[in-house]
Amino acid sequence: MKKTKFYFSKKLFFTCLFIFSLISINAQTNELNKEDAIVIKEIYDESLTSRDTYKLLDHLCNNIGHRLSGSAGASKAVEWTEMIMNSYGFDKTYKQDLFVPNWKRGDKEEARIIGQNDELRVLALGMSVSTPKKGISAKVIEVKGVEDLEILGKEKIKGKIVFFNRPTDQRLISTGSAYGGAVDQRTAGPAEAAKYGAVAVVIRSIGTAFDDVPHTGVTRYVEGIKKIPAAALGVISADLLTQALKNNPNVKLFIKMNCETLQDAPSHNVVGELIGNEFPNEIITIGGHLDSWDVGQGAHDDGAGCMQSIQVLRLFQKLGIKPKRTIRAVMFMNEENGTRGGLKYAELAKKNNENHLIALESDAGAFTPRGFGVTAEASTIKKFRTWLPYFDRNTISYFKKGGGGVDINPLNRLLGTPTIGFIPDSQRMFDIHHSDNDSFDSVHPRELELGTASIASLIYLIDKYGL
Amino acid sequence: MKKTKFYFSKKLFFTCLFIFSLISINAQTNELNKEDAIVIKEIYDESLTSRDTYKLLDHLCNNIGHRLSGSAGASKAVEWTEMIMNSYGFDKTYKQDLFVPNWKRGDKEEARIIGQNDELRVLALGMSVSTPKKGISAKVIEVKGVEDLEILGKEKIKGKIVFFNRPTDQRLISTGSAYGGAVDQRTAGPAEAAKYGAVAVVIRSIGTAFDDVPHTGVTRYVEGIKKIPAAALGVISADLLTQALKNNPNVKLFIKMNCETLQDAPSHNVVGELIGNEFPNEIITIGGHLDSWDVGQGAHDDGAGCMQSIQVLRLFQKLGIKPKRTIRAVMFMNEENGTRGGLKYAELAKKNNENHLIALESDAGAFTPRGFGVTAEASTIKKFRTWLPYFDRNTISYFKKGGGGVDINPLNRLLGTPTIGFIPDSQRMFDIHHSDNDSFDSVHPRELELGTASIASLIYLIDKYGL
Repeated sequence: MKKTKFYFSKKLFFTCLFIFSLISINAQTNELNKEDAIVIKEIYDESLTSRDTYKLLDHLCNNIGHRLSGSAGASKAVEWTEMIMNSYGFDKTYKQDLFVPNWKRGDKEEARIIGQNDELRVLALGMSVSTPKKGISAKVIEVKGVEDLEILGKEKIKGKIVFFNRPTDQRLISTGSAYGGAVDQRTAGPAEAAKYGAVAVVIRSIGTAFDDVPHTGVTRYVEGIKKIPAAALGVISADLLTQALKNNPNVKLFIKMNCETLQDAPSHNVVGELIGNEFPNEIITIGGHLDSWDVGQGAHDDGAGCMQSIQVLRLFQKLGIKPKRTIRAVMFMNEENGTRGGLKYAELAKKNNENHLIALESDAGAFTPRGFGVTAEASTIKKFRTWLPYFDRNTISYFKKGGGGVDINPLNRLLGTPTIGFIPDSQRMFDIHHSDNDSFDSVHPRELELGTASIASLIYLIDKYGL
Repeated sequence: MKKTKFYFSKKLFFTCLFIFSLISINAQTNELNKEDAIVIKEIYDESLTSRDTYKLLDHLCNNIGHRLSGSAGASKAVEWTEMIMNSYGFDKTYKQDLFVPNWKRGDKEEARIIGQNDELRVLALGMSVSTPKKGISAKVIEVKGVEDLEILGKEKIKGKIVFFNRPTDQRLISTGSAYGGAVDQRTAGPAEAAKYGAVAVVIRSIGTAFDDVPHTGVTRYVEGIKKIPAAALGVISADLLTQALKNNPNVKLFIKMNCETLQDAPSHNVVGELIGNEFPNEIITIGGHLDSWDVGQGAHDDGAGCMQSIQVLRLFQKLGIKPKRTIRAVMFMNEENGTRGGLKYAELAKKNNENHLIALESDAGAFTPRGFGVTAEASTIKKFRTWLPYFDRNTISYFKKGGGGVDINPLNRLLGTPTIGFIPDSQRMFDIHHSDNDSFDSVHPRELELGTASIASLIYLIDKYGL
């Protein structure tokens, strides 16, 4: 081959140099800033040794208990979290006033296959109307989803109880996705079934366990469509019902509940603040929701997220971390059946012309951290990824595109605030979610604290380096 | 600045091209081979929907129970796993004969602070000798580790019960590391204390929970040093003892146990094989240990690893994956107090001139997968890392350098076989390890099955593409 020479322009030379420098920058991103690494280690050490989040959650679950919007428990939780943050001497602690839906379950629900002795395990869906006092007895028609209703038509549905019985998809590794793929039966099922003349709805509980503990959760009636009673059966009870229907399609189900919706009740978001010493007007929100369903103790959903949010500020305080920006811990009210707290928070932020840098929500359980989901500019996500080496690979191992939370999404919609969702391991969450089993004894102290520390570490880095 | 032109050699031009191509290769490694992605999805789908590993583990735990080497449970487990693999029609199923230590706990142990009524929760350490029939009553000297013994000297130790009371380090994110940093008190403590004339040893249980369930585990006597009785106290019991000693340093502890070590007993490793259709002489070993301690059910330690190993072969069979290499599921006997099974397996492999490509062990619990630790050439680890995109980030998120297992490490020592350790989330493992709480009801079905599927997927890729 003939030996040749090439003429390269200066531009091409600098292009090559630029590539080299990019490679070198990429290598550097894996190097830790020692000071930050030390602070982050302190955050984890303090969390794992003090177990303070766990102690707070113990009080919330075992001394206050569940906290449905409008309930005495919710009021107590508002007072107590305000008191706790005050006692810590945060720079500011205050409440935001709002009104919340005020639904009451009433007496224990009853469900029975007529002619069989066994009681089925049942829980009214949140916001459901009551049955008549003597209950409802009607034939049952089983469907796998709302799309089946149109196929069946009014003729086959009218006067019956519609039984939504599509299980969650166990193949999905994210149980949140499995839940998301089945929950329309609960949220939309009753209103859809009412269109075809159904007299009530029962659903197979939306969860991942094969037990008989029913899972409640909100159902959404539609203006102008008759509100019919709706309840969730335990999975084993749902299997019993489907078997009974196979044996005899004319079998009747008896269901009785006496829920009621009272007038909206006054309630509050509770906010604690550490004021930034460099950019006090730039706000970073960390939140969870203080309300829960009226079963279990709302430990994972979402006592954990609230206690973690308070504890992030507490860790900054204890470790002498002076934030540049203002960091807020927000206990949102009414995530479960109205999102009134999240909406109020965003409205006030807009009204007061607040400058929100970013908001993070922890509402996916107190399990071992896996990652964060981020709704922000690509450059922000890229920047966050350069911080991965600060995290032990058995805590935070990724930042994925897309994430937030029901309570902080209004901030994103109204103000364009970027949002982050904390992602813990999901395998156990939907076994217990919205059920009696969401109790303090299902929370592992180290898993909870690793969540706190992971959130605190990310907030520390965001506060220091921006987006 | 003056405009200049540069002369570039052809060599420099190709260097630049090479850099571009490297970048492009790196991008390609993130692309999936579609066929492999489909097979791996099938592996996860089948695991999560069949829950077959969980069913096997249910039988092992609830119908057979714990399986200490030399016990009736261990014999039953050998017969049952051989029967199961035979019933699946694996290409070969056989036992390897060996002899195992044969230690018996005897009656329930007793421990009491003299003058106090409360019984302390106590478990003899595995391989411990008995106390005299009437027990031992002696003063107690508390230490934080073996290094304290030399400082105290014979004068202060002679005739006393040495109480090792150094807790595990809660700051460590890997609880395996925390365990590793404290376990010398159990393994070496009794032999060391005997050198200074101690009459017995009690230790604070080596675990991460703050409960009162004692954790056993092996202690290692040293030839020529007196064997003294050794037991583990529950953590709350250990705290009671340390408090009693603070109140009165002359307080005496009563301890009684009647363990004995019988003659070595005959036992077996159990092996199932799918024979490779291209390289039948290249062997890939997947294993767990079939023996357990004689408390709880040995569910996480290590019923899970055994059932996962069988199930990997079963998945290949069910999904019609014909391995190129020979894949072996090995139930190793006697990991807990002798490693006789692991040693025998390696000896036979050497004696029979077997060609072992790689060996993987699952012995860290049935929790959600996090990664794999790999002891192999750097190029192998690099190759494995190119496979990360096949794994959902909420299962396997890393391959780290260094890993194996007690039972497969002899294969590495004798034959130089590369080894892999499966790494699940560690937060809950050492709460229950070697205690009554290591039972089937602490196993989460989806977490267990994700472990099976992750191991099966890695083995599929190794079998297809080599190291």
